[in-house]
Parts: sequence; structure tokens; C-alpha cells
Amino acid sequence: MDASEYLGKEMVDYVADYLEGIEGRPVYPNVEPGYLRPLIPTEAPQEPEAFEDIINDLEKIIMPGVTHWHSPYFFAYFPTASSYPSLLADMLCGAIGCIGFHTINSYAASPACTELETVMMDWLGKMLQLPEEFLAGTTGEGGGVIQGSASEATLVALLAARTKVTRRLQAASPELTQAAIMEKLVAYFSDQAHSSVERAGLIGGVQMKAIPSDGKFAMRASALQEALEQDKAAGLIPFLVVATLGTTSCCSFDNLLEVGPICKKEDMWLHIDAAYAGSAFICPEFRHLLNGVEFADSFNFNPHKWLLVNFDCSAMWVKKRTDLTGAFKLDPVYLKHSHQDSGLITDYRHWQIPLGRRFRSLKLWFVFRMFGVKGLQAHIRKHVQLAHKFESLVRQDSRFEICAEVTMGLVCFRLKGSNQLNEALLQRINNAKKIHLVPCHLRDKFVLRFAICSGMVESAHVQFAWEHIRELGEDVLRAEKA
Amino acid sequence: MDASEYLGKEMVDYVADYLEGIEGRPVYPNVEPGYLRPLIPTEAPQEPEAFEDIINDLEKIIMPGVTHWHSPYFFAYFPTASSYPSLLADMLCGAIGCIGFHTINSYAASPACTELETVMMDWLGKMLQLPEEFLAGTTGEGGGVIQGSASEATLVALLAARTKVTRRLQAASPELTQAAIMEKLVAYFSDQAHSSVERAGLIGGVQMKAIPSDGKFAMRASALQEALEQDKAAGLIPFLVVATLGTTSCCSFDNLLEVGPICKKEDMWLHIDAAYAGSAFICPEFRHLLNGVEFADSFNFNPHKWLLVNFDCSAMWVKKRTDLTGAFKLDPVYLKHSHQDSGLITDYRHWQIPLGRRFRSLKLWFVFRMFGVKGLQAHIRKHVQLAHKFESLVRQDSRFEICAEVTMGLVCFRLKGSNQLNEALLQRINNAKKIHLVPCHLRDKFVLRFAICSGMVESAHVQFAWEHIRELGEDVLRAEKA
Repeated sequence: MDASEYLGKEMVDYVADYLEGIEGRPVYPNVEPGYLRPLIPTEAPQEPEAFEDIINDLEKIIMPGVTHWHSPYFFAYFPTASSYPSLLADMLCGAIGCIGFHTINSYAASPACTELETVMMDWLGKMLQLPEEFLAGTTGEGGGVIQGSASEATLVALLAARTKVTRRLQAASPELTQAAIMEKLVAYFSDQAHSSVERAGLIGGVQMKAIPSDGKFAMRASALQEALEQDKAAGLIPFLVVATLGTTSCCSFDNLLEVGPICKKEDMWLHIDAAYAGSAFICPEFRHLLNGVEFADSFNFNPHKWLLVNFDCSAMWVKKRTDLTGAFKLDPVYLKHSHQDSGLITDYRHWQIPLGRRFRSLKLWFVFRMFGVKGLQAHIRKHVQLAHKFESLVRQDSRFEICAEVTMGLVCFRLKGSNQLNEALLQRINNAKKIHLVPCHLRDKFVLRFAICSGMVESAHVQFAWEHIRELGEDVLRAEKA
Repeated sequence: MDASEYLGKEMVDYVADYLEGIEGRPVYPNVEPGYLRPLIPTEAPQEPEAFEDIINDLEKIIMPGVTHWHSPYFFAYFPTASSYPSLLADMLCGAIGCIGFHTINSYAASPACTELETVMMDWLGKMLQLPEEFLAGTTGEGGGVIQGSASEATLVALLAARTKVTRRLQAASPELTQAAIMEKLVAYFSDQAHSSVERAGLIGGVQMKAIPSDGKFAMRASALQEALEQDKAAGLIPFLVVATLGTTSCCSFDNLLEVGPICKKEDMWLHIDAAYAGSAFICPEFRHLLNGVEFADSFNFNPHKWLLVNFDCSAMWVKKRTDLTGAFKLDPVYLKHSHQDSGLITDYRHWQIPLGRRFRSLKLWFVFRMFGVKGLQAHIRKHVQLAHKFESLVRQDSRFEICAEVTMGLVCFRLKGSNQLNEALLQRINNAKKIHLVPCHLRDKFVLRFAICSGMVESAHVQFAWEHIRELGEDVLRAEKA
């Protein structure tokens, strides 16, 4: 197919129309499981089909089954970022289509891909005011890498921590086998942490223990210390704490200033997962929530959630990059003598689970430059303000309650009353399909999550959503009394 | 940023110009490590910058450091696919920007994303004539999933196999701990397999043993059987064989018809990695190379290598999807009673390492329809023919030798003579920067790999490359004699 046949401009029009008109589409699909298969042939066509036929099928087959994450009526999960600068960069990324890795003793697979990533991660680290140790610079021992998701970052941190403790113990007691060590390793996370944390332990074959969070849904020193003492007494080897800044359920923050020093004292790896909230730390007024990051060995957040960079782009930093690469390189001896992983040449193959990688740093470069730091800060602030607006609307209605402190763009709320009542309310909301929300459980309470998500959401949408929720709430309350 | 400001059409022009003019760019960059950092500011700008400034910087800063993987003079590694239909689909994928997962007890995150993937993987499976057990259909127990890379697919297979054998042994002997079992697990792969296979073992915490390949660089029954007997006698528990179809070094094929029955007999999981060669199995004349897949538990290849689907898109099938999901779901009891993972609703979160996922099946849909099966077959056949053309050119020159059978689009060759001689030849080739190749080692021989890669490569490029190589070969031979 010749470049002149490029139908890109038609697709640009389709995409622009889609995004401009997204408010008019039902946010939530009205299809039953299995809807799609009967709509398309059972086999691929032998002969080529026209682009126009596919475009026509988009509206008939695909769009009816799409949940429109960028609709201003989408208030579910957390945001997934989208912006034109990022879409533009992604087009370029696809066209260059290089696979960004280095081959051993080679600097060839695409230098620009690696180098732009290192520098963009330094830019982003500076935007967050990360401690200098996390930056690569030209001589640093730390640095950043773009992972596909926070789940991968957690897994990579766990594997690095597992390797590090295993080597340390084997250096002291060479008779210890890896299996004997792994059997005793234990990692900790808050009972509010994302399920991907426990899953990382499952993959890595180590025990994971949930630490009961406090009244504000935060991991605190006392509960962690208690678990540690018990486990050490039982002969286990604590090696990792995963702290969350901005939990999925209610955007609570583990207490880094308490947990950090314990990790240092006990020689445990501290990984911080700030998947959603991390983007906000580019605003000086929210940066204090990151205090304590200086105790961490690795830190991760998702620009693809809240920093206008399209999925996938999960930013991870480590203080010592040899800790990461040590977990993946097959020959640790090679590692010691290599000059490959200096500030100048970074082999990101050894920083991640997959070996190949897209030129994802282009997205960061375009987004940072086309919005500027101020533009990105304005985006964060707008979302937080809209959350507070919704919070104040809820607080004005005494039949409702706010269930957790509103710090970022998430409001956890419910009708005062039973879980059943609130389940009925959520069902009415999602059946009406005017807005889309998902719930969470906070302790024994069924709670509704209202997350500011879309790049296009304005005060009027939040106002509309609240009035709609309040009306349905009244219906539910009436139905209960009847 | 308003949709009307969409600069997509400018980017479409840039991309089209880039791809149309790629032949005129030096295939291989002429930069030194660290070249990029001094060219850009040390921090992100505070204020927005113009799109035009970024486009201008592309040529100044990025392009000089890009290895042009789609240049018709690029003969390194294996191909990475690129096509307009795939780029179009990727634009749409970015714009829809949904995160394709299901939430527990919900069918909401984007049904179309999941369902199109299931059906496209069935289409692709039928194109390969995979045994029916690997297809999802509406009632099947198997099915396909799009992973990010073959490395991830191998890891996922290893984790599934590890879970399956652990549960089987614990069912028979409930007193066995997971650690006690993991310590004894052993997996096998050919000494020609990709390094990602051994790396999967490192991540999964199990022993991996390389089986010496035969004279044609294939894993055979005898060598595997020998390793098995030794390990079983030593009390180890063989649980997994990773067979490769189309190895990275020389595109050799493990003998599935020998290895498969051993796996069945010994109750070992058989995973097939056909990352590169798999695409060719859509041509009836190459399908016989896949014979024996009926013994496999999982099969994987990369449409993003050779099937005109842009990275990332790695196609993986399993015969029993509960084997995969069982390795990732935290509660196996839940699994047993769930109707979620039926042929109708698939929760791909439990099939992979990351939790979020792009709407990657759009790329398959666009590519299958806009090329048709015949168009894709023609692409494969053209590459194989060009490889045979290069092979015959090499064979006509008695100073050169072919080092492995040419089956697909890869030719392994060298100057008759020392490794030093061939290292000097490769160095001259890559210093001249007219074409780009990478080497491999076959046993003790340093070998040059000539891989047909670009979608734009024609007979004339191959002819040019050969004449260039022959001239440089003559220089090297003259220098040796002098």
C-alpha cells in the first residue's frame, strides 16, 4: 500500500467528529454479552475490503459496545488521559515504528527512543520535585523508565527487591538456596491497596500481607510494626513495603513519613504506587502529599491517568538502576563489569517485563511542550475544583454523606442508610445511562465513587450529574418508604 | 484543547512524507551516546509551545537518532510490522481511549473492546488452521488474547503451568508447600531459544534447562528425553517445555512432532513460541511447519512482526482458558463458580500481566479487512521469495557460505573463513551505513543475519545490498591477505 493512499485524513476527521460529538453519545453501552459476534462474519475476508466499509461498520458494530471514557458524563474508575498532543505523538510513534531496545554491545535499535525517554523522565521527575537521587542526569545512579502500567511497575519493584534481598542473604550465608529464601520472604501493603499489588506477589511467588489501614484508610507505623514483629518472630524475612498514595477506593494516602523510616531501619525496599494521585504532585499545593518519597527505593505513577498522556505511559523511577537491571539480567557478573548502563547508555530491556517497547516518550515530549507545566497544572486544579464542587453539593443535602476526605478528583459518597439503599441508587443511576459511576466498599459500607474523569467535563456537567443523582436518590428513598 | 484545533492532518502529512521518503534517509543513525540531552532544555517549559516548533525539532533532534526500521535497507533483527490500515486503527484506538478490562460482576469497561478481541483471535486462529480447541467460539474452553510481546506470553504460560502443576501436586499431597514444589520445578527450552524464555524462569522463580539442539538447530526428542530422565532421577519435577518455531538466530524449528508426545506422556505444559515465523502459517505451503501444535497447551506469535499489524500485538491462544486465569485470579474458589469467563464474557485482566489494555483488536480488524487474507499471504510470500533471492546470490559466490536452511525471510551467511574476518565484514557494513544488519552466533561461528524486514523492500534493494556486501567482503579479504 502506497503512502499516497494514506487515509489518515479521513480518520482524523472521524476522530475529531467522535471527540467533538462525544457528549451526545450515551456514555454507557446498551448491549448484552455476546452482542458483537453475530454482527460480523465468522472468518476474515479473502479479498481486501474498502476503508469506507470499515468506517461504516464502526458505527454499526463497534460504537454501540463502547463505554465512552472521555464523555463528560463518565465519572467511573479514575480518568484515563487523552489529549490531542498525545494523539499526535502516538501517530508519529506508530509511523517511526521502531522497537526501542538495545542489543548487547550495540547502540543501534534506536538511540533517540532510549535517550528521549531518559531525559523526559528527568523532566517529569523535576516537575514532581523528586529527590535528585531518582534522576538519571548524566552521572546519576537512578533514573526513570516508562512502564505499561502501574501493575507492571509494582511487579518489577517486587522482583528487584526479591533479587536484592536474596543476594544479600546469600552473600552472608552462601548455603542458602533461592527457594529456601523465597519461602520466607514477606511483603506488606495496605488493605486499601489495589489488587495488582497482591497479584504481583502471586506472580513473584512470595507471601504478601495486608496491613489494616487506620480510620482515614491510611497505612500507619503501628499496624506495620505489629505485623513485622510477628513475622520476624515466626522466622519470616520482611523485604518489601508497597505504599499507596491515592488508593483506588477512596484516594487515601499511606503515611510515608511513618512507614519510610521503618523500611530504612528494617532494610526493606519501599515502593510507592501513586498511580492516580501522582500527577497532582506537579502542583506545589499538593506536593506535600509526596513528602517521604526520599525514603523510597522506587516510585511510580501513571501520566496516562491524569496528566493528559494517552495510555499506555506509567512513569517509574528508581534510586539505583542496578537494582532493577539486576533482577532481569541473566548474568550478574556481566552486570558488574558493564559500562552499558551508565548515565549515557541505558538498556531499558532490563528495566521491564517485555523486551520490546514503543517510542512512548514522544507522548511526554509533545504533551509537556504543547501544554506547558502551567497548562498541566491547570488541568489538575480544574478537576480538583470540580470534585470539591460536587462535594459541597452533596454536603448541602442532609440525606447524603461524604465517606472519605476529598483531596483530589474523587468524591466517595452515599445516601445515609443501608447498603441495600445505595446499591439500589447505583443501579438506578447506571440503568438510566445518563452518567456512569462505579462503587467501592469502605469497610462494611457500600459507597458510590464520583470521579472527575473527562478532559471535557465542566461545572455544568457536574451540576447535571448531582441533580440527576439527587432525583434518583429521592426515588429510591420513596420506594423504600412505600 | 478543542477538537477543532486538532493538528492531526499536519501530522498525517508529516507521517506520509516520512514514510514516502524513508529510503532517502540513512538507515542507521550517526550519533554518539548522550547526543540528545544537550540538544533540549533541562526542564519542561512552563508555557505552551507551538506544534510547529515541535515538528521542526523532530528533524533536528529526534530523526538524527532514529534507526529507521521501515527503511528498505534495514535487514536487521526481524521485521517489525507497519501498515496504513494498522496506523489508522491505532489512531482510532487512541481516540476511543478506553481501558479494556471488566470489573468484577460488571460488563462495563468497554464490551466492544473485549468482544472484538475474542472474535478477531478466532479469525486469526482459523487463518492459521489452529485446532478448534484453541478457539473461543461461543462455547469453547479455549481462546485467544492479545499480549504485548512474546516475552509476556512466555511468562504467562510459565505462570499458568506453574500454578497448574502446583495445584495438581498439592491435591495429591496436601502437605506440600508452594515453596517446596517450586524448588523442584524445572522447565526446558532449546539452546537456540530467545533469552526471554530463560528470563521468564528468572521472574517466575523456577529452574530452566537448555536442551542442546541438533545439527539443524532444532530441539529433538532424544536430547529432551535425556535431560528429563536425569532430572527426574535427581528428584526434580519437569513441568514445562517451551518450543520455538523460527528461532531468533537462524529461524530453526524445534521438532514438535517429537517433543509434543513427550510433553503429553510426562504431563508437562507445552508452550510454542513462533514469534516471527507464526505469521507465515497463514500460507498453506508453510502450514506443515505448525504440525504438532495439537500437542500444545499454549501457542503464541507476533502479528506485530510479520503480519502488518503495528507493535504491540502478540497473539496468544490457550486450550483451556481457566489454566491462564487460574494463575492470576487471587481466589481460585471464585473461579470455579464463576460464569464470567464463559465464551460470552471474557475478562482479559486475568489473562495477562498488566490489568489495563488498549483496544488493540481494532488493528487486527482493519488489517484483516483492508488486506484480505490474500493480501497478507502475498506479503509473506514476497518476503520469503526475496530471502531466497538473496540466498541464491550468496550461493553463487564461492567465497561465501549459507549457514542454516532458509525457510522464511531470514538468511544466515558468512564469508568462508575465521570469525574475525566476518566480524570485520559486519563492522564495515554497519560503518558504511548503507544497509543495516546484526549478527548471531551459531555454535562457535560468527554469522551475519540478513532479514527481509521492510514493507517497502523490493528485489532491487536486495540486489543492491548483496553487491554492497560482496564489495565490502572483497575489501575485507584483500585486507586479510595484505
